[in-house]
Amino acid sequence: MPSNSPTVWKFELEKTLQACTHDYRDLALEQAQALAEPPSALTALRMIHHSHPYLINGFSPLEKETANLYDWSRAEVYKEISGSRRVTVAVTDDGLADSVRERHDGRKTFVKALETKMTMSQLTEKLGRSADQDSFIYYLQSQDGNIYRDQPSSSGPPELEAFQKYFKRDVSWMKEAIGKQAEAVNLWIGDSRSTTSLHHDPYENIYHVLAGSKTFTLLSPLETIHLDQRFYPPSTLKRSPSGQLYPEYDYPNPSCGPRIPWVENLCLPRSARSISVTLHEGDTLFLPAGWWHRVEQEGGEEGIAVAVNYWYPSEIHPERYAYERFFRRIAIMSGMEGLIPPMGDEESINSEENDDPDR
Amino acid sequence: MPSNSPTVWKFELEKTLQACTHDYRDLALEQAQALAEPPSALTALRMIHHSHPYLINGFSPLEKETANLYDWSRAEVYKEISGSRRVTVAVTDDGLADSVRERHDGRKTFVKALETKMTMSQLTEKLGRSADQDSFIYYLQSQDGNIYRDQPSSSGPPELEAFQKYFKRDVSWMKEAIGKQAEAVNLWIGDSRSTTSLHHDPYENIYHVLAGSKTFTLLSPLETIHLDQRFYPPSTLKRSPSGQLYPEYDYPNPSCGPRIPWVENLCLPRSARSISVTLHEGDTLFLPAGWWHRVEQEGGEEGIAVAVNYWYPSEIHPERYAYERFFRRIAIMSGMEGLIPPMGDEESINSEENDDPDR
Repeated sequence: MPSNSPTVWKFELEKTLQACTHDYRDLALEQAQALAEPPSALTALRMIHHSHPYLINGFSPLEKETANLYDWSRAEVYKEISGSRRVTVAVTDDGLADSVRERHDGRKTFVKALETKMTMSQLTEKLGRSADQDSFIYYLQSQDGNIYRDQPSSSGPPELEAFQKYFKRDVSWMKEAIGKQAEAVNLWIGDSRSTTSLHHDPYENIYHVLAGSKTFTLLSPLETIHLDQRFYPPSTLKRSPSGQLYPEYDYPNPSCGPRIPWVENLCLPRSARSISVTLHEGDTLFLPAGWWHRVEQEGGEEGIAVAVNYWYPSEIHPERYAYERFFRRIAIMSGMEGLIPPMGDEESINSEENDDPDR
Repeated sequence: MPSNSPTVWKFELEKTLQACTHDYRDLALEQAQALAEPPSALTALRMIHHSHPYLINGFSPLEKETANLYDWSRAEVYKEISGSRRVTVAVTDDGLADSVRERHDGRKTFVKALETKMTMSQLTEKLGRSADQDSFIYYLQSQDGNIYRDQPSSSGPPELEAFQKYFKRDVSWMKEAIGKQAEAVNLWIGDSRSTTSLHHDPYENIYHVLAGSKTFTLLSPLETIHLDQRFYPPSTLKRSPSGQLYPEYDYPNPSCGPRIPWVENLCLPRSARSISVTLHEGDTLFLPAGWWHRVEQEGGEEGIAVAVNYWYPSEIHPERYAYERFFRRIAIMSGMEGLIPPMGDEESINSEENDDPDR
C-alpha cells in the first residue's frame, strides 16, 4: 500500500487506472465485428449489450418501392428531390465543424461552423471534384433530424422532409430491439475536405453510406483517460467584412459563460487503442453510444460523400453509469487533467479552484 | 485534492467509493420488477442487460403433457418418480450448507455440508412438519445439474434423471435470448430449517418454486463493499463416533491449502441496500449473474419447500469486468478489508503479506 507521499498515491492510482484499461483490452475485440446480413432484433439487442462496433452488410435505409428510382451516389438525385427548398449548411475554412482552435490573442476556443442556407443545387455545386471551389468548405450536417425527428420542432418540419418518401423512418431491428423509434434520422452530404474531430454521442447510432466512403476511428469509452479533454469557451464562425471566417465568442465574457468539453488534438496518443472501420457505399456501421469517433470521408464517382444515420435513445444502465463516474473521479484524483468531472461534481471542483489562493 | 496524509487519501477514496454506490442507487430500482407473464426472448435479453431482478408470473418449468399428473406440492410425487434411486443429500446441524463457523480451537473455517446418499422416500421422511426428526437437517441441493446438465459427468447420468420427462430441459425464452442451453437444471428439496448464507453465482438464474415459499434477500454486485468477505480454510462436516457433526479441514495444514472467500455475517450491515422477494408456489425469479443472495424458505401444505432452477452461462462483458476489478482494487487501496482481490492480484497481495516483518 502507498506510503506517505501524494506522488506515490497518485502513481498507484494511475497504475490501477491503467490496469483497468488493460483488463478491458484483454477481453474486448480488437476489431469491429462483421455481420454478413442485417441482424434480428435479438442480435441487435446483443450488439447494444456488448457495446462494441459492428459492420453490417446488406442493410438498406431506402424504402423498397422507391429505392431503385435513383442512383444514390449521384448529386443529381439530391438536387431533384430537394428542389428549391433551402437547407442549413455548415461552412468552415478548415473542414472541421466543432473543433478547438487558437485565436489571434493566443486563447483557445471551441469553434462551431458558420451556418448558412442554400438549395441542394447550390450545395452540390460547391462539392466534389469539379466543384466551384471558393476558399470555404461546405457540409450538410444539421443533425437535428433533418429527414425525420422524434419530437416536433418549433423551427417547423425537417428541412429534408422531401426525402421521407425515400428513406425509412426506422431501422426495423433497432426499433424492435430498443422498443422506441429513432430520435433523429439525418442526411449528411459533403466531400473529402470535411472531417470531424474526435467526439462521442449519447445515442446508439446506425450509420449507412450512400455515396463515397467514410473511415471511422473508434475508441471505447474506457479509452477516455488516454485522451485530453478540456473545457473551452464556445465560439461560432462569422464572416468578416473582407469575407474571411473568424471565431466570435458566443458569450461576451468567455470566462463566465458555459464551457464546452472537447479534445483538441486531432492525432491520437500512442497510448490509446483505436479501431478503424472504412464503410463503402452500401455498408452500415453500428456505433455504440458513448464510443469516441472521428470520421474522415472520400467522395465517390462524383466526388460527394453521402450518408444517412439513425440515432436511437441509449438507455442509462445504473451500474455502468456509476462505474463510469467513479472511474473518472479516480482519474482526476490521480492528477490526470484531461478528463471532465462527472456532472454534478463541476461545482465542487470550480469552488476549489476559486478557493485557491494562488489564483 | 488530498494532502500528504495516507489517512486523508484513504478517506477520499472511501468517499469516492460511497459516491459510486449512491450513483448506482440513485438510478437503480429499489424493488424487483414484476412481469405479469413470461417474457419474450427479447424482453429476457433486456432483463439480462438490465441486470436487475424480475419476478415472473405464469411461467411453468413443467412439461405440458405430464404437468397435471401430479400435485407438485406433495412429497408423494417426488418419492414416486425417484423410486429406489439413491440421491445426494446435504446434512448439517444448523441448516446452513456453505457457511463460516468458529472451530473449537477458535479458528474460523468455511464449512460444507456432509453429503450422504438416500432414497427420496427416506429424505421426505426427514422433512416437513411431521418429520421423523433426528438432530440433523437434510437438504437435497446437489447443484450439479441433478435433473439435466450441459456436460456429461464422469459420475454418470444426473441423479434425478427420472424427472426429465416432467421438467423442461430449458426455459425457452432464456435459451433463445442467450443462444445457449442451460448449464444445469437442479431440483431443490428441503424444509424451513435450511437457509443459505449470502453468496453469489456466476450464472443467470431462473428460479421457480413448486412447493412452499422462498424469500430471497438480494444485493447488487455494487453492494460488495458494504459486506465483509474474507478468506477461510475449507472444511467438510464429518460424523464423529458419538454421532455429532464436526468440521474437518479439507487440507491437513489449513494455512497452506486453498482458501475460500465468504461472507461470515448472516445479518446485513445497515449500510447495504437489499431487495427482498418472496416467491410462492408457481412464482419464478430471474436472479441476474453476480447478484448476492440469501434464501430462506417455508414449507407448503406438507411442510416441504421444493424449487427447480435453471443456470444459464453469463457472458463476460469486457467493460463491466474491467470496472468491477477496478472498483475492488480501489476499495482495497482505501483500506477496506472485506473484499477479495481480483483474480490475478492475489499473489502480489500474498507476497506483500509474506514480506511483512511482523508476521
